[in-house]
Amino acid sequence: MRKMVLSILVDNTFGVLSRVAGLFSRRGYNIDSLTVGVTENSNFSRMTVVVTGDEQILDQIKKQLTKLEDVREIKELPPGQSVSRELILVKVAVTPAERQSVISIADIFRAKIVDVAPDSLMIELTGNEAKLAAFIELLEGYTIKEIARTGITGLSRGVGDMGEYIED
Amino acid sequence: MRKMVLSILVDNTFGVLSRVAGLFSRRGYNIDSLTVGVTENSNFSRMTVVVTGDEQILDQIKKQLTKLEDVREIKELPPGQSVSRELILVKVAVTPAERQSVISIADIFRAKIVDVAPDSLMIELTGNEAKLAAFIELLEGYTIKEIARTGITGLSRGVGDMGEYIED
Repeated sequence: MRKMVLSILVDNTFGVLSRVAGLFSRRGYNIDSLTVGVTENSNFSRMTVVVTGDEQILDQIKKQLTKLEDVREIKELPPGQSVSRELILVKVAVTPAERQSVISIADIFRAKIVDVAPDSLMIELTGNEAKLAAFIELLEGYTIKEIARTGITGLSRGVGDMGEYIED
Repeated sequence: MRKMVLSILVDNTFGVLSRVAGLFSRRGYNIDSLTVGVTENSNFSRMTVVVTGDEQILDQIKKQLTKLEDVREIKELPPGQSVSRELILVKVAVTPAERQSVISIADIFRAKIVDVAPDSLMIELTGNEAKLAAFIELLEGYTIKEIARTGITGLSRGVGDMGEYIED
């Protein structure tokens, strides 16, 4: 079993999201995450789909996707040779005494405070899966009121693996 | 016609994304953007769907969604009383002479350079729709090679509209 990140270029047509999501659910493939947005050319959208499975299943998924009329290009984004990012919003309940410690955790992750209320803070953070997981784990001593996350989007790097030089 | 941002809490069940996306496409409602992610409680996912339509259509959409078995809660996120954010990755082709000007544009928007190659830069930016649109517009003098975006996610604010005080 491994996790695969697929970048799928599709025609920006009506119902394309439903057709791609339907392909996965009809065949019993579980999607870890899916994001979609229009690209540099407004005729096309780019979907980023994360799926987990054994090699045979992952191969099948790629083949099935190729058969969809709306699909123009499928590219796998291998961890080292691509950038993948997700955005998360977390609303944390805070007492006056807790407020500063939550802000400190946000600072360590270079997260932004995007809303304050007398009894809560809303924090915006972007990063790869591991960074977001570490952040949520650190917040577990507090009361998380709400979480909204986008799912992963990604692009292949210009030249191979440079993660260790320039990534956060 | 107006744009509506819906925050939909759904059971984290197999195929729920396909069922929600299918509801929109079957009824001919066009989705501007859709994101989905697991919440503070792993039994539930939160979807953020952006749709444009007249009041009657938007009302219908809410009613239809309520009928879906997986849907637990539907909340509209009005602009002033909520935070909505999207993440975008942009790969820009740059000559050595252009590189610094593209980095300067990124700096103005407090965007991050997440990848460099001899002939390109990859930039990560988060913000609301207007901020991302302004950023892309500024890059139009350059060659945008690839764009990947997550679509909008959002949460309601703790107390009403505080955008003017603490937002970027």
